[in-house]
Amino acid sequence: MVGAGQLARMTYQAAIALGVELRVLATDAGDAAVRAGAPHAVGSAASLADLRAFAARADVLTFDHERVPPEHLAALEAEGVRLAPGAAPKLLAQDKLVARRRLRELGFPVPPFALASTRWEVEEFGAEHGWPLIAKAPRGGYDGQGVQELPAPCRPAAPLLLEPRLELERELAVLVARAPGGESVAYPVAETVQHEAMCREIVVPAPIPDALAAEATGLATAVTEAIGATGVVAVELFVTRDGLLVNELALRPHNSGHYTIEGCVTSQFEQHLRAVLDLPLGSAALVARAVATVNVVGPADGSDPAERLAAALAVPGAHVHLYGKAPRPGRKLGHVTVCGDDPEPTRAAARTAAALLEGRA
Amino acid sequence: MVGAGQLARMTYQAAIALGVELRVLATDAGDAAVRAGAPHAVGSAASLADLRAFAARADVLTFDHERVPPEHLAALEAEGVRLAPGAAPKLLAQDKLVARRRLRELGFPVPPFALASTRWEVEEFGAEHGWPLIAKAPRGGYDGQGVQELPAPCRPAAPLLLEPRLELERELAVLVARAPGGESVAYPVAETVQHEAMCREIVVPAPIPDALAAEATGLATAVTEAIGATGVVAVELFVTRDGLLVNELALRPHNSGHYTIEGCVTSQFEQHLRAVLDLPLGSAALVARAVATVNVVGPADGSDPAERLAAALAVPGAHVHLYGKAPRPGRKLGHVTVCGDDPEPTRAAARTAAALLEGRA
Repeated sequence: MVGAGQLARMTYQAAIALGVELRVLATDAGDAAVRAGAPHAVGSAASLADLRAFAARADVLTFDHERVPPEHLAALEAEGVRLAPGAAPKLLAQDKLVARRRLRELGFPVPPFALASTRWEVEEFGAEHGWPLIAKAPRGGYDGQGVQELPAPCRPAAPLLLEPRLELERELAVLVARAPGGESVAYPVAETVQHEAMCREIVVPAPIPDALAAEATGLATAVTEAIGATGVVAVELFVTRDGLLVNELALRPHNSGHYTIEGCVTSQFEQHLRAVLDLPLGSAALVARAVATVNVVGPADGSDPAERLAAALAVPGAHVHLYGKAPRPGRKLGHVTVCGDDPEPTRAAARTAAALLEGRA
Repeated sequence: MVGAGQLARMTYQAAIALGVELRVLATDAGDAAVRAGAPHAVGSAASLADLRAFAARADVLTFDHERVPPEHLAALEAEGVRLAPGAAPKLLAQDKLVARRRLRELGFPVPPFALASTRWEVEEFGAEHGWPLIAKAPRGGYDGQGVQELPAPCRPAAPLLLEPRLELERELAVLVARAPGGESVAYPVAETVQHEAMCREIVVPAPIPDALAAEATGLATAVTEAIGATGVVAVELFVTRDGLLVNELALRPHNSGHYTIEGCVTSQFEQHLRAVLDLPLGSAALVARAVATVNVVGPADGSDPAERLAAALAVPGAHVHLYGKAPRPGRKLGHVTVCGDDPEPTRAAARTAAALLEGRA
């Protein structure tokens, strides 16, 4: 697995149970997965030489992030390295513009968009869709980085992906795992709740009508199939007045799927390994009627949520996951999942435990 | 944690999620927990010097087995090392004779027993209880090692703990976790099914009347409290025509509790860490109506169950745990847990997956 953050850490936990040998490519021996004991090489995901050396010892290469340069992936694939997902589907998680164009071409609903390199192009898009606009760097952004609001026409410093500021009823995420042979399994539809452009809460099942849930599941499954992904795919969807739109894809385990560790028969991390290794996929069924996950983010005072572990564990049913990362304000340092019978108390318990860890309660 | 077998390995998995730093004392860098990435020292659990050096870097010392010489534990405790459990309660899991005497003294029901050093003492016990007798080495035995049937009087080579061959209706196991302050949490009553003196299947909840389950829970909780244990205690009980008898104690996570990983809100491994570190205990409630665990044992042909992982994962709902141990006939190499609604299909699925791993299906 290229990358050694919390996604690799949790994938490593799943690998231990299966007895699967997972190695990670870390930028630093202090990375979250390395601190969990994952065998590792230190190197750069941006270096073809490092990737090549790392791949030489692996049966198959997979990823905990989207930051490997697409040209390196294409080069590795051409050299015969097995990638899961492959370079072509992975590109749709790496380049928002490529994804929008490809998904539109495939007939999937996406938000209106344009690439703007000049002031005139920004002005034209704004005239059509209204101000402010949302402008995104096509590559490299996550958790709201690389996203800005344009209140008025301006000259882009670099080409920008423009979209209208949509009126969203909700944001949803559907995980789909797809095996190399095409078999796929869809997880329940989750609602993701963002604060300051970072996903903070995941509520499952999403409180939406069954017909909409079925549509979201069908859409996510069709997208995963159409792009030929291998492994777990997170399909982020916007619910608008006019229906569902595909926002972004992640071709890897995803923050919106952390609830699956305790909430589903097969966690997204085990499922990703099973798909990548062409082992039979597991059931994605929920094991509780309601599941909620709340992220734990480094508080402004720089303190470490680990110091408040005891308080959080006193919350009945709180499953605490800490990633072993150095605390920094705003950094994702862990999450809490609670499974229950009723959505509201379940979500409240997860919020309380997360707030206690962040020193807010 | 002194010891680095599969119990330490699974405790280490729980430690990753909590962000707790668990180090293990391994006999060998190939031990199961070390292969899972646990930080470790190599040393002997029988060496006071090794234990002392290991303890010097720890806040508290706990155990994945019962084999640390009791006198070493007493010495460490006298030197101020925090042990969880302490040396005195731990002795009851290390010495079957001490345990029987102490439990009888405390008023708990135990099988009839005697210590025999001479042929005459064996003969006398047999005359009272009938032949054959069961003879156990007071120390060091597990999984049936150190246990023999005596069909007729003989002169013991070393002092033996004698007991009648009891007519057992069932064997039960109840896990209880106890915090240093005395708070305790009892898990559901499990039925353990032995083959050739090794626990092979765990069925939860045990198919027994509620009143008997309540009695078993009360007995296990009272024993744990009376001996002042810290951490997880497995209380093994015999169900006889005359009622419940306390057979053996394990003062550590136990094979009979592997079902708790997927089957309960808090796994025995996380619970043990919580108790040992004086963190609040978690709920021990079941998350499914029926849970079954079947051990995976090295087949006679010496082959590795890991080679048959794909077949086992094709069994719906099978949670496969492989311990990363070198295969050897008769060695515990993993287990499979299935959660379901009905006991029989749940148990059948776990059996099927385990049989597939062992190459028997």
